[in-house]
Amino acid sequence: MSQTRRPPIVGRYMQEEVALASRNCGMPLEALRYDVTPAGLHYLLVHFDIPPADAAQWRLAIGGLVDRPRSLSLDEIRALPAKTLRVTLECAGNGRGQMSPRYPSMPWMEEGVSTAEWKGTPLAGLLAAAGVRHGAREMVFRGTDRGFDRGTEHDYARSLSVAEAMRPDVLVVYAMNGQPLLPQHGAPLRLVVPGWYGMASVKWLANIDAVAEPFGGIQQLASYHFRAQASDAGIPCSHMRVNSLMTPPGIPDFFTRRRLVQAGPVGLAGRAWSGGGVQVARVELSVDGAWRDAKLDPVAGPWAWRGWSFGWEALPGEHVLSCRATDANGAVQPTEPLPDVGGFGNNSTQSVAVSVRA
Amino acid sequence: MSQTRRPPIVGRYMQEEVALASRNCGMPLEALRYDVTPAGLHYLLVHFDIPPADAAQWRLAIGGLVDRPRSLSLDEIRALPAKTLRVTLECAGNGRGQMSPRYPSMPWMEEGVSTAEWKGTPLAGLLAAAGVRHGAREMVFRGTDRGFDRGTEHDYARSLSVAEAMRPDVLVVYAMNGQPLLPQHGAPLRLVVPGWYGMASVKWLANIDAVAEPFGGIQQLASYHFRAQASDAGIPCSHMRVNSLMTPPGIPDFFTRRRLVQAGPVGLAGRAWSGGGVQVARVELSVDGAWRDAKLDPVAGPWAWRGWSFGWEALPGEHVLSCRATDANGAVQPTEPLPDVGGFGNNSTQSVAVSVRA
Repeated sequence: MSQTRRPPIVGRYMQEEVALASRNCGMPLEALRYDVTPAGLHYLLVHFDIPPADAAQWRLAIGGLVDRPRSLSLDEIRALPAKTLRVTLECAGNGRGQMSPRYPSMPWMEEGVSTAEWKGTPLAGLLAAAGVRHGAREMVFRGTDRGFDRGTEHDYARSLSVAEAMRPDVLVVYAMNGQPLLPQHGAPLRLVVPGWYGMASVKWLANIDAVAEPFGGIQQLASYHFRAQASDAGIPCSHMRVNSLMTPPGIPDFFTRRRLVQAGPVGLAGRAWSGGGVQVARVELSVDGAWRDAKLDPVAGPWAWRGWSFGWEALPGEHVLSCRATDANGAVQPTEPLPDVGGFGNNSTQSVAVSVRA
Repeated sequence: MSQTRRPPIVGRYMQEEVALASRNCGMPLEALRYDVTPAGLHYLLVHFDIPPADAAQWRLAIGGLVDRPRSLSLDEIRALPAKTLRVTLECAGNGRGQMSPRYPSMPWMEEGVSTAEWKGTPLAGLLAAAGVRHGAREMVFRGTDRGFDRGTEHDYARSLSVAEAMRPDVLVVYAMNGQPLLPQHGAPLRLVVPGWYGMASVKWLANIDAVAEPFGGIQQLASYHFRAQASDAGIPCSHMRVNSLMTPPGIPDFFTRRRLVQAGPVGLAGRAWSGGGVQVARVELSVDGAWRDAKLDPVAGPWAWRGWSFGWEALPGEHVLSCRATDANGAVQPTEPLPDVGGFGNNSTQSVAVSVRA
């Protein structure tokens, strides 16, 4: 049915990569102008198909090593204490398409990131009501989306340690930007794990199980690991790495997306973020290689990207603009991607080529 | 700033094509299950950037060869007689990515089609109020999205003959699926031209001008023409060609999208459509080359796709499924794409490879 391992590729892109790019929307970079990404512009990574879902019949089952196994309807979940959080999510594979060699998968250039207002009930409350037993080590989250990856058939599933799952800002979510979840974003119910790459925020959430052993599902053990070489055991992807993007200035060419800017003062702006609740401490902008500090907007909450701006006096000619963020831990974006077999965690600095006309 | 002509390409895809595919969402084929495509799953073709737009300040100017030039606010347009239509739109370049050789542009495989409920006011009423003069030959529609294509800087603009523009179902639209237009679909105002390929439905509509001569804009004269050879004058793209798609059955492999289906009865279903208000008269389905009639759903209005279904008794092994529509004019989908330099109008039959397990 499918290959178990896909060899790395260089140069032009496979038809499978293009088909994935057409299915899985990126956020067009001009949408960086929005504090909260509007409906339908939020990036999307759907591993299999968007499953059919009947909200009226939906049940969330909580079981495994719990004292009181439960099965909740959507109405029952909506009646629980609600919390709304502004959360930036980024695909762990964002930037994969710019790496060389690259892993054949979703070929994000840099547009696999967005921010939404997610409303739901804290997972911790659901788990407290179910009574997670002492011997439980992880919580496993399972969606209804099913398919094959690397030769293995499975429902999409991921786990968190019990401690991580009990964080007060991990939500079981039923609304996005003030509307019921859209089908492609996990309707009627999904997990949102702030501070983590998107793969942890399981969509179409149907089952939560407390387990005594580390979860061995393919999306947990095989995929979503940082590996410099294929033989490495690897480090699991978790918190987002520090990253930043700018809104490309001026106007584009349709095909090359190259930009044309009028000489004179140009307001550059963008967003920067990091993972694990660590704030962005600094954003720098370079014009043709000289880095200068950008102006940071106020912090927009513990989990959301931070706006920045930079006044550029554009001189006629060809220029390359880059932005680079540093977080409160001192982590800074690299100029080149770190080698990674699966194409994960590419937070190297964005470059935007610009022609300035007099 | 940009090439004036892009040479055809074969085989693997350019990075520019992948970047366009990530920006311009396709409709995932499983969304064929919805009569009306939900927000954010409607396909998108944005030539330049999604422009910033302030609905409160927006003006639609109607001028040129009219007796009473006008400039209307959004509130003034919303106060006019309203009409809601269910309209299937397809990108004229849908299927381009499967052609060989192909034109380097948005590399749609087959997902550049969707259906929405568009609400607006008939353009004919606006034009009657403005008083289009006798010498006017075409109406030119201009958006606020600006950029380069083939070396030429321009606002996106298209024209219709005065007769076509006066059709009662051509709408100036401010809502989609019961919500205000989303930024990426032309907020706050756009044109919707039912029966035509999507390029006619100008987004971010700011100006309408009556003109005495055929409009010579690049999107009207250079792009969006059927041309068997580059030297051909070409035939302008207008009405959509007859076409159909099926929801791929079973479950997919993440990367190849190849399908696995359980042996036994399988309900196949999909949608078919044609252009110019011509209805779909027949849909056939083939399993490994033998065509049989599918069952047609009732017509869903003059401008919307038509559902179809087919009961398949799946036998273990490898199979190829295809669907083929015929419209009321007798036009039928070809098995292979018609040669087209720009990759327009590829309505060749879809093929879905399926593994059936016992």
